[in-house]
Amino acid sequence: MDILELVEDISEPSPTKIVLVAVDGLGGLPNPETGKTELETANTPNLNHLVAEGCCGLMDPVSPGITPGSVPGHLAIFGFDPLAYSIGRGAMEAIGVNFDLQAEDIVARGNFATLSKENLIIDRRAGRISTERTAGLCQMLDGMQIANIKLIVRPVRDYRFIVVFRGAGLASGVSDSDPQMNGVPPRKIIPLNEPAEKTANIANKFISKARTILANQHPANMVLLRGFSKRPQFPSMTDIYKIKAAAISSFPMYRGLASLVGVDVLETGNNLEDKIATLEKYFKDYNLFLLHIKQVDMAGEDGDFANKVIQIEEVDKAMASVINLKPDVIVITSDHSTPATLGMHSWHPVPVLIHSKWCRPDKMIKFSESNCRNGGLGRFQAVQLMPMVMAYALKLGKFGA
Amino acid sequence: MDILELVEDISEPSPTKIVLVAVDGLGGLPNPETGKTELETANTPNLNHLVAEGCCGLMDPVSPGITPGSVPGHLAIFGFDPLAYSIGRGAMEAIGVNFDLQAEDIVARGNFATLSKENLIIDRRAGRISTERTAGLCQMLDGMQIANIKLIVRPVRDYRFIVVFRGAGLASGVSDSDPQMNGVPPRKIIPLNEPAEKTANIANKFISKARTILANQHPANMVLLRGFSKRPQFPSMTDIYKIKAAAISSFPMYRGLASLVGVDVLETGNNLEDKIATLEKYFKDYNLFLLHIKQVDMAGEDGDFANKVIQIEEVDKAMASVINLKPDVIVITSDHSTPATLGMHSWHPVPVLIHSKWCRPDKMIKFSESNCRNGGLGRFQAVQLMPMVMAYALKLGKFGA
Repeated sequence: MDILELVEDISEPSPTKIVLVAVDGLGGLPNPETGKTELETANTPNLNHLVAEGCCGLMDPVSPGITPGSVPGHLAIFGFDPLAYSIGRGAMEAIGVNFDLQAEDIVARGNFATLSKENLIIDRRAGRISTERTAGLCQMLDGMQIANIKLIVRPVRDYRFIVVFRGAGLASGVSDSDPQMNGVPPRKIIPLNEPAEKTANIANKFISKARTILANQHPANMVLLRGFSKRPQFPSMTDIYKIKAAAISSFPMYRGLASLVGVDVLETGNNLEDKIATLEKYFKDYNLFLLHIKQVDMAGEDGDFANKVIQIEEVDKAMASVINLKPDVIVITSDHSTPATLGMHSWHPVPVLIHSKWCRPDKMIKFSESNCRNGGLGRFQAVQLMPMVMAYALKLGKFGA
Repeated sequence: MDILELVEDISEPSPTKIVLVAVDGLGGLPNPETGKTELETANTPNLNHLVAEGCCGLMDPVSPGITPGSVPGHLAIFGFDPLAYSIGRGAMEAIGVNFDLQAEDIVARGNFATLSKENLIIDRRAGRISTERTAGLCQMLDGMQIANIKLIVRPVRDYRFIVVFRGAGLASGVSDSDPQMNGVPPRKIIPLNEPAEKTANIANKFISKARTILANQHPANMVLLRGFSKRPQFPSMTDIYKIKAAAISSFPMYRGLASLVGVDVLETGNNLEDKIATLEKYFKDYNLFLLHIKQVDMAGEDGDFANKVIQIEEVDKAMASVINLKPDVIVITSDHSTPATLGMHSWHPVPVLIHSKWCRPDKMIKFSESNCRNGGLGRFQAVQLMPMVMAYALKLGKFGA
């Protein structure tokens, strides 16, 4: 029995309410001048109040040393082991742009690329053309019909896009056309099994037509496809935890992922105030709110230490409204660290606090990486968080007699 | 997907350099008179400098409570779970003496034993004869040819040896001749499946001939064989981590194991100075150096607390040269503890320090078991070390979108 099966077995409906705040990219590294991280630098009276009354710890998003993208990072917080619940590369990108992938769709990840007259790949990334340029090229390719299959092409970021194959008789077992190196020709897509023959055929025709359409679009005169996959079939959080769960986020990837695990995705605005207003509006209607805040991560990705501190302080202010709602359990954590000194996602474990009347106090009075290191929750893997949170909300019964 | 597959998927070539120093048997227990372990007693200014700038933790070589031999201990540090990547007993001994096992060889572990006139085993260990005596007996048995199979016999230690079956048509699926008890006759070796019939036949003939040759060698007048196995096929560290890796060790087992996981084994001398000179000579040529130091473990095995302290201080002095090379990441750890008070390998978790500019500082200023217990790396399993080390060297990309 795995832990999700156990949790599904022992979870019980209850009226208790949980607010889980994922502060994207919260964890950091010290500013060399002060020796303090972003969180340690920020003035956070509300977070400090929560940690003083609750308990804290450090959490590895996937496994020590592994830097997660946002999809595996959030999947783990939702209680799904990202190594066990794998998502194909094409599907991962589609979720990343919140494309509404249907159960029978096949989706591939695409690069715009530069091809020489001799049919050799000169640049797998077409000079890293902009997202805007890619959006325009996608419009040129979008909407083809090959046999009974409709092809939907959507931009992702920079030179990357997705192509969705929609119609009857498709299968994902086909090889890539992207050889993942320059100086060689694109590969012909071949079926890896009999049911995938049609998909390979349609994909090769799409590539051929795309090449004609893009002939004068140098450096983006070719497409390379890989990671053909389907929408993954995940168990629903509603079933596993026997809760009504709602996600509040304006980040497409987060909205797509929440929907994939059976969570209602609420309409909300881009600002933190919008999200708090959405939480307040729907507070009576759900048991679990998954509130996602993106701004802190963006400051970290920009390498802007001072702004990351400011954004953390904004989150802290917003927490006053969350505290006012008096949920039974408040959780503050993150899908990964984004230290401003690194300017990108990192592998460092993330701080977690749980506020519940059932915490064993650990005497920490400031929410920070170093206090979390010594906190009462210890160090654990992100996939273990959700069962803990459910326990602190008294939503899990006893395992065994 | 397991973690090694994930790491292989996200690892990226980079010019950064890592020196991982395995101080064999480093972990200890307190001297009852002072309450301080060997490492806590030693004067270690260089290790203290590294831990003050870096971060530290405690690592379980295999799993809490499990005392590893050197093979599983080092295998875990290399990133291979010793419970998943099993090595047959015969192959384990062959690696232990750095015997160059070929892919098709079958190797068994052997004991010299004492047999009575009634064909009963009187002593499974032949009175624990010396390694020298065993070496002489091995020469008497070495080089037989039975059918198309050549038999190679090499001493291991004390009464133990290996016999390698080399030639076409062999398989490892045969039973042991060693009944693992005294007072009973040796067992006939039987094939456990059809492809192993020839191997069983040759092995029984070898035992019969050996018995004749050893007739006058009391107490070593018989051989007992067990653990027939092949050279394990492990993935290469070079492939997984996309690095050029070199091992620096004069310990045959370590050299054999490094070679098994695709690491270049450099020629070096027995002394610590020789190893540092080898590191300096090849520093420009590799990305990862696996430097193995044996002396500390030997002092621990001897139960010589004072000498173990001295040997740790010698390691500390040598670290000055490692620091001078300015690798991007320095790791100091061990394959297992060897407390001098116990005088043998133990199950106690081992201290680890990682020195990198991307460490979250943990305010420890002395490298010791008790500081590692409160260190920023927390407590983790040795098999998780290598992904962490790769992360701190910025050699791993992001997992997922």
